[in-house]
Amino acid sequence: MSRDPLLPDLAPGEVWLVGAGPGDPGLLTLLARHALAQAELVLHDALVPPAILAMAGPDARFEPVGKRAGRPSAVQMRINARLLAHAGAGRRVVRLKGGDPFVFGRGGEEALALRAAGVPFRVVPGVSSGTAAPALAGIPVTHRNLARSVAFVTGSGSGGAAPAHDWQALSRGADTLVLFMAGGRIGAIAREIMAAGRAPGEPLALIAAAGTPEQTRILSRLGEAAEAAARLPPGLPVLAVVGPTVGLAHLLAPDLPGGTAPAFPAPSLVEGAR
Amino acid sequence: MSRDPLLPDLAPGEVWLVGAGPGDPGLLTLLARHALAQAELVLHDALVPPAILAMAGPDARFEPVGKRAGRPSAVQMRINARLLAHAGAGRRVVRLKGGDPFVFGRGGEEALALRAAGVPFRVVPGVSSGTAAPALAGIPVTHRNLARSVAFVTGSGSGGAAPAHDWQALSRGADTLVLFMAGGRIGAIAREIMAAGRAPGEPLALIAAAGTPEQTRILSRLGEAAEAAARLPPGLPVLAVVGPTVGLAHLLAPDLPGGTAPAFPAPSLVEGAR
Repeated sequence: MSRDPLLPDLAPGEVWLVGAGPGDPGLLTLLARHALAQAELVLHDALVPPAILAMAGPDARFEPVGKRAGRPSAVQMRINARLLAHAGAGRRVVRLKGGDPFVFGRGGEEALALRAAGVPFRVVPGVSSGTAAPALAGIPVTHRNLARSVAFVTGSGSGGAAPAHDWQALSRGADTLVLFMAGGRIGAIAREIMAAGRAPGEPLALIAAAGTPEQTRILSRLGEAAEAAARLPPGLPVLAVVGPTVGLAHLLAPDLPGGTAPAFPAPSLVEGAR
Repeated sequence: MSRDPLLPDLAPGEVWLVGAGPGDPGLLTLLARHALAQAELVLHDALVPPAILAMAGPDARFEPVGKRAGRPSAVQMRINARLLAHAGAGRRVVRLKGGDPFVFGRGGEEALALRAAGVPFRVVPGVSSGTAAPALAGIPVTHRNLARSVAFVTGSGSGGAAPAHDWQALSRGADTLVLFMAGGRIGAIAREIMAAGRAPGEPLALIAAAGTPEQTRILSRLGEAAEAAARLPPGLPVLAVVGPTVGLAHLLAPDLPGGTAPAFPAPSLVEGAR
């Protein structure tokens, strides 16, 4: 087992809640890889790619526990119970989650359960899909003169309806909107955002399976969100981005397929004219 | 020079815009370290710690170009010109930034300049301070039943006034507010947030120098923001977090110094009663 004087070690009976990043093994952190190399038990989300799981040691055991849209959910209570059982048995436990454990990852719930049971734990932040998926698609979530605020919003809910948020306030307050797990609700969400006053011509990006070989980017505009979503390959996790910086995507990542987004509200803004 | 079949190589004449994460060397990504190991020239923000710069090869040259509050600014135009000059000379160039290059990092401006000049570049996302600083302080920026949205907002501006944002909309739309570079303006910003209807008793965290040995966490409440800021050591970069999940900090990271935040709006919410 490798020892690195800069990195703390995972002790027997400890649980580390570790972010795996958006999917690209290169976007795992040094501490996450160090933890995986020492883990005896890896409880991982279903979406964590094999190339990342392969960084665990040869004797590590794996337990997939992730929830996937449209499949039966492993209940959070059961995940908490597994973490406590493995830690109680004195194992070195890594709970590996896509993205960052605290960004729509339920890491807080697991951390509270561990704290309540007196199990020592550590949170290892990861690269969030909320920033990395746009970046890999050529979209900065902030940019001088275009976006001085960005909101991460869960789009998860039931059926095709937009989930309950103050869409009026979010749409007026945040220059860039990043919608997690919007799935089949992106059309309904786009209508809420336009009802709050944002223009149908405002650029929209849909990014599926960011950081993996299946990554797909669709560039469109708010008023055509439902049609854009229909062009996505089925069954992949999707992140949606709305805002003027989406209009930079064709400049910053021109070689990705999936259409173009309009420069918005005017190309001169890109040059800093505002 | 190490070769890893999973990781792409930095070619001569290329510029990679690389996120260094919040400060802890363990939170650097594998691809960022791979890039540093190959870099012939590292243009880095002043705040990137020496332990991260030490991951560059023995022959790498360093150019500090970061802007630091209260010190003379290296102008962005000059940074762009340096990137173009080094790439034009055929060097392998890493532009290393704290956190993530596209989260208030001006990476988009540098990427546009490189694109306009025809210089090949790559963006390597990093762990953003916006999620990692709270996590390292025991604060999940999202949490079921407490926070289903989070906004990252720049607090930078001139003097002690709150910068121009639609604070009413941001404060009503986003459950968690993360304020970057709020510096001496946190008291004025807190007044704007309270004027939008958020309670003076709502928990507030100030986190200085996250992920470094100097990390300091102050837990307080919105109505006492200015007093809390006065307790911070001077000269460190500060991130502020406002929202109900800040009330979890004393549970999730009880051993950090810096006071306690109130459970808000009621401890029962932590148990999922809502």
